[in-house]
Amino acid sequence: MNAVTRRDAVPPMPAADALVRLVARIRHEIPLTAAMGLEAGTLAGDSLQLRAPLAPNVNDKGCAFGGSLASLMTLAAWALIELRLQARGPRCEVYVQDSGIDYLAPVWGELRVTARLAEGEDWAAFFAALDARGKGRLTILAQADHAGMPATRMRARFVAKRALAKAT
Amino acid sequence: MNAVTRRDAVPPMPAADALVRLVARIRHEIPLTAAMGLEAGTLAGDSLQLRAPLAPNVNDKGCAFGGSLASLMTLAAWALIELRLQARGPRCEVYVQDSGIDYLAPVWGELRVTARLAEGEDWAAFFAALDARGKGRLTILAQADHAGMPATRMRARFVAKRALAKAT
Repeated sequence: MNAVTRRDAVPPMPAADALVRLVARIRHEIPLTAAMGLEAGTLAGDSLQLRAPLAPNVNDKGCAFGGSLASLMTLAAWALIELRLQARGPRCEVYVQDSGIDYLAPVWGELRVTARLAEGEDWAAFFAALDARGKGRLTILAQADHAGMPATRMRARFVAKRALAKAT
Repeated sequence: MNAVTRRDAVPPMPAADALVRLVARIRHEIPLTAAMGLEAGTLAGDSLQLRAPLAPNVNDKGCAFGGSLASLMTLAAWALIELRLQARGPRCEVYVQDSGIDYLAPVWGELRVTARLAEGEDWAAFFAALDARGKGRLTILAQADHAGMPATRMRARFVAKRALAKAT
């Protein structure tokens, strides 16, 4: 594989404004994320962050509602894949297949979730499978931190399927 | 163990109005559940159902948002334990420890989730542990159905801890 093919197979992380546009689209298309106050966080290296204020996501104990954390982790993982697909193509539908979540400690403030590829996963293999078979799978890790410690951890498998071309 | 002790150890399923009151409390204390349109479903045998309309929980594909389904399954499982604790005591805090979810098929209408004890679990052992050590664990299954088929399945572990008596 030469350098040009390699670059084509693994697009660089998109710019931060791509995440801001994606979050605006998510808030428009999934009303519950607007109710959560979903916001774009940072894009750093190979990770993607989403945030939400505590007030609309608080539970009966005064800390973050587990359902909000689960939603935010799933959205961050989905967004990590979606942004790469937007940068390179093909146009796909991306679905979560299954997820496992550990709730380690409460989150007593703003919800901040970071998603990254799981160990052993790589974008080149994902795009190669998509190109060859129209379908690719990825395992993503997402984590919410509080006071510098992990508060919730998710491991989730996603599948991307090439969207059918619209009949014109 | 005689019949009286047994009845005390395992209280019967609470009446439907207890679930209606619990859902009103959840909607008041967890604002996102009001945004979801959370409603009490049926209490049948040893299972508890929660419901929510599709409109506030729709995703970009027109079916139910995975985060809403995950939230609803976690709430139904939590409510199953909370109602039994209300009926028998002691007063406890109930937390989710970890959960695994399989997303099998989309839900194209009202979200309906049913929670029940996992195989091998029983209320008597849970209350015995609570009475002896102030702490009990339970594994709960929750499922969303669509068109008579399972759409999402959750297996989650919860811990209940006896609440400390308030200083007066």
